[in-house]
Amino acid sequence: MNKNFATIVFALGLSASGAHAQDGKGLWSVYDASLKGAKYIDLTHVIAPDIPVWYGFGPSKFARSKAGGDIEGFAKKGDEFTYEKHGFEATHYDLATDQLGTQLDPPAHWAPEYPSIDELPPTYSLRPLAVISIVDKVASNAGYHLQVADIGAFEKEHGRIPEGAVVFVRSDWSKDWPKPELATRKPFPGVSLDALKFLHEQRHILLHGHEPLDTDTTPTLEGEAWLMHNGYTQAEGVANLDGVPATGCLVTIGFPRFKGGTGGYARYVAVCPPDTPVGTTIGASDAPLPKSEKPLHWDAAAGTRVR
Amino acid sequence: MNKNFATIVFALGLSASGAHAQDGKGLWSVYDASLKGAKYIDLTHVIAPDIPVWYGFGPSKFARSKAGGDIEGFAKKGDEFTYEKHGFEATHYDLATDQLGTQLDPPAHWAPEYPSIDELPPTYSLRPLAVISIVDKVASNAGYHLQVADIGAFEKEHGRIPEGAVVFVRSDWSKDWPKPELATRKPFPGVSLDALKFLHEQRHILLHGHEPLDTDTTPTLEGEAWLMHNGYTQAEGVANLDGVPATGCLVTIGFPRFKGGTGGYARYVAVCPPDTPVGTTIGASDAPLPKSEKPLHWDAAAGTRVR
Repeated sequence: MNKNFATIVFALGLSASGAHAQDGKGLWSVYDASLKGAKYIDLTHVIAPDIPVWYGFGPSKFARSKAGGDIEGFAKKGDEFTYEKHGFEATHYDLATDQLGTQLDPPAHWAPEYPSIDELPPTYSLRPLAVISIVDKVASNAGYHLQVADIGAFEKEHGRIPEGAVVFVRSDWSKDWPKPELATRKPFPGVSLDALKFLHEQRHILLHGHEPLDTDTTPTLEGEAWLMHNGYTQAEGVANLDGVPATGCLVTIGFPRFKGGTGGYARYVAVCPPDTPVGTTIGASDAPLPKSEKPLHWDAAAGTRVR
Repeated sequence: MNKNFATIVFALGLSASGAHAQDGKGLWSVYDASLKGAKYIDLTHVIAPDIPVWYGFGPSKFARSKAGGDIEGFAKKGDEFTYEKHGFEATHYDLATDQLGTQLDPPAHWAPEYPSIDELPPTYSLRPLAVISIVDKVASNAGYHLQVADIGAFEKEHGRIPEGAVVFVRSDWSKDWPKPELATRKPFPGVSLDALKFLHEQRHILLHGHEPLDTDTTPTLEGEAWLMHNGYTQAEGVANLDGVPATGCLVTIGFPRFKGGTGGYARYVAVCPPDTPVGTTIGASDAPLPKSEKPLHWDAAAGTRVR
């Protein structure tokens, strides 16, 4: 809101929140005016048993849920629930790690004196999103790491990164997802420790995120070590940044609250202005959802349901 | 935005989105004016091995992640990663079901021709939230189910439920969470099939949610059956609705995208106007997060990490 605009609003005896509070519509008016027509871009990978993961962890397995005991007239202990026999299915997950797919690392991943995933406050849910691209640098140096100078160049073009923002670093590394070799590909694009310090100490962002599975290629993972041991979080395995404008979008952040959890299976969705070329709009096909001609079914070879 | 307000904005040659698009700030301006000062209320239970779950599923177990193979100079296959020895921990989850804790049911839970959790569009991320309370009715009838008449009374007081909204039904059932007897307590407060049909067919909401683990107490689970077989989703195990205003809040929706998944471990956060009495505000303690005097550590008896 610019100053003239604010003056007129004030002259009318209204304010952005005050006007809405009076009619009981509160933030619904904000939604109607600015979010209902937005473009929504999913920044999240699908988690499947064969996605790239750090080689230090073992494999993860999916299965159909089984009856935990005898259920009279319905199922015997150990029976797999199936659409055909029971009218529903559920899924059993044997997950080797909480560091899987698109993640949110709480600092307790490395530092037990700081919050675990369930202890993050609900203010980790909706933030301004800035996307800094290092794609040009990565084209000539696959191991390029974001530098403070890149942030300076970004701000010269786009203005200052807002306090409390989420800053995602676009490298297009995720375009090869889910090729298995991504788990061990070296080098990969990273974020330098100096850049992390600048973003947190000078810009006071909420968190940064990157596309690869690790923050940098140093032997000690110096960037992640500094973040975790200083009470910061980070997003890993972020996708689809190529369609997101550098400034002007919001991001929703969601993850289940596993007790004492040291990683977060996350979902990030960019909420962008209506004139953004890519993205999905809210519409009638959100509910009811469209029917597929190919029914979902268990595929033993894939180790998951497929169509 | 009322008409006078819109007229003045128009006279200035501005529009809610146009003004922002010109300065590159896009939805950041909306955030600054209306979301940065909001109250954030977590509507999500913490998932632990001992939370109430349908008795038909077996138990779930957490463990520290182990090395999936030998890692030279660091760990041998099968070693548990610990803060002390390895400088980090991760978590192994053996989850009997995807119907655990605060959930989002995709229709593929019952109907394989409809989307699984990973196939939901990114427009499932941020919506207007209406909270309809049946607490008074439940006080005299623990098995009370939301009726169409209750929705009528709600709209008479608060106005029409907006298209595309999320509607959560407050019963305060979740106040006893995580008492184990909740898994089998009968009766429990529900949502009638007629109410579900009204909300979807007459009001075209995105989804409804309720506090208990099931939608209703009919032997066939007729409400859930109708929803799933008609391509609708639902939220289950929702918490903390007592502090959320009936109208005027938004809700963020997040969940990991497990391939072919038939349930969603979810996070819901209400984003409410600044004058809402409860809730958390965005502030300096979001990053870095505060240090605890009690370090997180593995508790074999609890089967999870605790402080």
